[in-house]
Amino acid sequence: MSIAVSAQPVALAPAGPAGPDDIARLVVSCPDGPGIVALISSFLYRQGANILQSDQFSTGSRGGRFMLRTEFQLGRVRERLELLERQFEFEVARRLRATFRVRPAATPTRVAIFVSRHDHCLLDLLWRARRGELPVEVVTVISNHADLERDVAGFGAPFVHIPVTPATKAEAESAQLDAIAGQVDLVVLARYMQVLSGDFLDDVGVPVINIHHSFLPAFAGAGPYERAKARGVKLIGATAHYATEDLDEGPIIEQDVVRVSHRTGVPDLVRKGADIERAVLARAVDWHCADRVFVDGSTTVVF
Amino acid sequence: MSIAVSAQPVALAPAGPAGPDDIARLVVSCPDGPGIVALISSFLYRQGANILQSDQFSTGSRGGRFMLRTEFQLGRVRERLELLERQFEFEVARRLRATFRVRPAATPTRVAIFVSRHDHCLLDLLWRARRGELPVEVVTVISNHADLERDVAGFGAPFVHIPVTPATKAEAESAQLDAIAGQVDLVVLARYMQVLSGDFLDDVGVPVINIHHSFLPAFAGAGPYERAKARGVKLIGATAHYATEDLDEGPIIEQDVVRVSHRTGVPDLVRKGADIERAVLARAVDWHCADRVFVDGSTTVVF
Amino acid sequence: MSIAVSAQPVALAPAGPAGPDDIARLVVSCPDGPGIVALISSFLYRQGANILQSDQFSTGSRGGRFMLRTEFQLGRVRERLELLERQFEFEVARRLRATFRVRPAATPTRVAIFVSRHDHCLLDLLWRARRGELPVEVVTVISNHADLERDVAGFGAPFVHIPVTPATKAEAESAQLDAIAGQVDLVVLARYMQVLSGDFLDDVGVPVINIHHSFLPAFAGAGPYERAKARGVKLIGATAHYATEDLDEGPIIEQDVVRVSHRTGVPDLVRKGADIERAVLARAVDWHCADRVFVDGSTTVVF
Amino acid sequence: MSIAVSAQPVALAPAGPAGPDDIARLVVSCPDGPGIVALISSFLYRQGANILQSDQFSTGSRGGRFMLRTEFQLGRVRERLELLERQFEFEVARRLRATFRVRPAATPTRVAIFVSRHDHCLLDLLWRARRGELPVEVVTVISNHADLERDVAGFGAPFVHIPVTPATKAEAESAQLDAIAGQVDLVVLARYMQVLSGDFLDDVGVPVINIHHSFLPAFAGAGPYERAKARGVKLIGATAHYATEDLDEGPIIEQDVVRVSHRTGVPDLVRKGADIERAVLARAVDWHCADRVFVDGSTTVVF
Repeated sequence: MSIAVSAQPVALAPAGPAGPDDIARLVVSCPDGPGIVALISSFLYRQGANILQSDQFSTGSRGGRFMLRTEFQLGRVRERLELLERQFEFEVARRLRATFRVRPAATPTRVAIFVSRHDHCLLDLLWRARRGELPVEVVTVISNHADLERDVAGFGAPFVHIPVTPATKAEAESAQLDAIAGQVDLVVLARYMQVLSGDFLDDVGVPVINIHHSFLPAFAGAGPYERAKARGVKLIGATAHYATEDLDEGPIIEQDVVRVSHRTGVPDLVRKGADIERAVLARAVDWHCADRVFVDGSTTVVF
Repeated sequence: MSIAVSAQPVALAPAGPAGPDDIARLVVSCPDGPGIVALISSFLYRQGANILQSDQFSTGSRGGRFMLRTEFQLGRVRERLELLERQFEFEVARRLRATFRVRPAATPTRVAIFVSRHDHCLLDLLWRARRGELPVEVVTVISNHADLERDVAGFGAPFVHIPVTPATKAEAESAQLDAIAGQVDLVVLARYMQVLSGDFLDDVGVPVINIHHSFLPAFAGAGPYERAKARGVKLIGATAHYATEDLDEGPIIEQDVVRVSHRTGVPDLVRKGADIERAVLARAVDWHCADRVFVDGSTTVVF
Repeated sequence: MSIAVSAQPVALAPAGPAGPDDIARLVVSCPDGPGIVALISSFLYRQGANILQSDQFSTGSRGGRFMLRTEFQLGRVRERLELLERQFEFEVARRLRATFRVRPAATPTRVAIFVSRHDHCLLDLLWRARRGELPVEVVTVISNHADLERDVAGFGAPFVHIPVTPATKAEAESAQLDAIAGQVDLVVLARYMQVLSGDFLDDVGVPVINIHHSFLPAFAGAGPYERAKARGVKLIGATAHYATEDLDEGPIIEQDVVRVSHRTGVPDLVRKGADIERAVLARAVDWHCADRVFVDGSTTVVF
Repeated sequence: MSIAVSAQPVALAPAGPAGPDDIARLVVSCPDGPGIVALISSFLYRQGANILQSDQFSTGSRGGRFMLRTEFQLGRVRERLELLERQFEFEVARRLRATFRVRPAATPTRVAIFVSRHDHCLLDLLWRARRGELPVEVVTVISNHADLERDVAGFGAPFVHIPVTPATKAEAESAQLDAIAGQVDLVVLARYMQVLSGDFLDDVGVPVINIHHSFLPAFAGAGPYERAKARGVKLIGATAHYATEDLDEGPIIEQDVVRVSHRTGVPDLVRKGADIERAVLARAVDWHCADRVFVDGSTTVVF
């Protein structure tokens, strides 16, 4: 097996200004080995692409996994996408035994937000989406309570009220799946206070990001603020992670903490916690939607 | 029962400049109730003391505990200390069912530092003590290894090498107790890698501060950095706490964290951890020695 | 001059549970000297008040200024307020040459928010006010643009559009003053992009809090993010301060920073800045409304 | 001009374990344009090198500058270094109009530390160098005072005392230059309290890193802590930057801050400042010595 690199002149003249429609992202994951960057960057060069930014990481040169995320500029990239994928599959991915994905940077990620009664994470996501800070399209907001319907309407997003009781949980999850099937690329649990079943997670077919109101693995489970208070910790935190069947055990995307003291009562912990939760969740959703997060076993690589 | 407050003129003329020898600290802990601050501040006023700084906290007005720390200026406070204590006992503490302590601010806390092979916490404490940043007198450094003897000598502190093996542990602890009996007010475990027995903690008769290299309660026990890496956390931390028989469960004095990523391998975690450990331990020792830490059940109040 | 402290039994039995209507705050500022705490706490004790929390600070025992903030519980405090003030004036304030204020903790601060087109600070304040996190009543939102009218309506707050041009500035300020005269206790400039005249600040009669989008005194004036980028700083910040005629020179209430790098372009600086601005402004408004901020010359004391 | 990329099979079998002696770093800076990564990575691949880590940044695709830092593994890299450089010059650098440098990762940077009387930055650098945390060889410590001689001796480093007075400054600088000429790759000003002349900076021939005890550009010049106190800032900082003739204006490498309050007097500011200074300087030196810092006009790119 050999790489036929058809060489081209190095155009030192800078390329034209990149409009957002000319920018795409390539993410690659494969077994590590020599020559990967050369192979991929030569491919992009032959296509006429200009690399704007590139990150790579290897979990170890012997038996490890190589991950790469490249943002490149290429004229009419949307129209050429399908062909580009086929060529990359044939010329690069097969040789590297790689999984990969290319997508235009301007394509928003379609998101369903699940929420219960706490409004802080939901409102922050809707607000950031509206001001163009998060590259998402909020396809639907699903809640087991009706409380936040008016707020969601204010942002012009659809709201679906699907009540959940222990007796109707299976039914409710089925309704939730119907409401999002084929419509979304991501589910965000923005303080959704129901535990999703393993069946739901199996069937949903897209990643699910959850925000947990503690610095995991400390205070996994219910009542983290009360337990943090009882334990006398000096910092409280929040953790955004991919939801898995093992509750609060999924790969961590982002965490942060805020300082507390003996003067911080539980209501104040809840308030300070809300601020850190919405910040951490917004960052995790942003990074996921920008293709910056790779799952690596029980952990993540975040470029 | 009534308070006889012998009133004095309020001297609006400011008192003379406070030399360090004129400053003392009063710490009080008692059941909460009305009138405590009035009683204590009136007592100090009648003594001619000028309150420089005061902190107080109540764990709840009904059935809670009141804690107070006051720094005051009073001429010739050292000479008057014994009388002051007796008067405070008689005029204030009995009425409030309070425990209390008065001590001149200039009196250093006598400290024994226990260490194994890691030098970072030890050197930082010795350096801060030397430059007058920590109000301590390092009476002795005790180690189960001889490695750090020369470093300790460089700071002019005594070094005692007491090897510990499973077979000789009881003997070694006995030697440790002999080395510090009556000599110290505080024991600091500066990455001392032996577990102290319950007997030692019972017999030592002074508080023992430990530094644990994780953000407790996450990763209690051994190998916290390795486990943090495996779990993919985005922050690592350190925790200074009072040592109790329940390993890693004692009241927390201070904690802090530092950001890590997938690029931070275990050796880098150890390095970043060392920086955060020495900072957290130094703060905890400083605050303890400044009488700023009150133990409140399994937690602490830190003024 | 002597203090007649009519002594009362120390009631060790704890007082009844404090409802929010029974809690008030006393703030005092006076020349420092001995006996101040005794005088104030004895006064409160004689009134039957139970001190819940107290902070004090002196800028120096010789010629310095003493500041105190006490939160206390006292039955029917609203009804007794006027009498309490008169008694405090007579029994305490005159002797100490003190300025003071007492007010029920449950009384919200009446606020006017000035805004231009940036929505982040405004929305955050409105949202925190709605969820009961900020002890404020938003009396009016005044803007020189109409853009945010609908958002403000969604929160049920009045919105007044007062356009400002160089030619109409004096008129506009006059209309602004009319709109808030006697109605508000505080003006918050939530990224209001017009410079208020000295006349306005003289006439408004209440404190004015501004948020500046840099870590003052670095990058005072216009375009701080662009200048931060050009200077290559590694952190950007925000500063909440009292507005004075010396633009960007007023006493600082709160500041915070966030890490940036060469990869953070100006648009990203603006986004990250928006997050830190809204957090810093919300804290400053909260602390001001909780009577926790004392102006001390060109600086502040924040309890 | 065309690139003749002689293609090789992609060896999917992982390379052998990288010893520190097999690892080298390549840093490249050139005008941006398409094909740069392909050209460089293909070059490394043809040499048999395995890229372990790579960072790149462009200041703009049109007329901007491209910077790259690659860590690669290559057997017997030391012996092959000269040839590698010549080949890179011929095959890559000329085409890209690039400046570049290759050096084995295990080669320590030779450092001269300049210091006056403050010990905190110096001791921290010496300690980190001793424990292998900083990839440096401390060739000499030069001071205008003799105070720290014994401390430096304790770490086994040479100490040169060169007094400086206004009258002897030129002479002293000449003696300093003699002491380090050809011996060092970097000068670190670890709280060296003399201003170096433009002549010195011209003649020294290696980068000079300085630590300034404020968050630049705030409080440039003398007495930053006193001025920070007077201005009432809520955070104090430290800035490590390359020294230039424009005092406190050189490109910033790293900054950090720590929270202070009205209770933090100037001596406490100095203490807290010392902690942040030594941390910031150590990071800047580490990154510089790891070839992670690129100067870009008045700013830096730090990988």
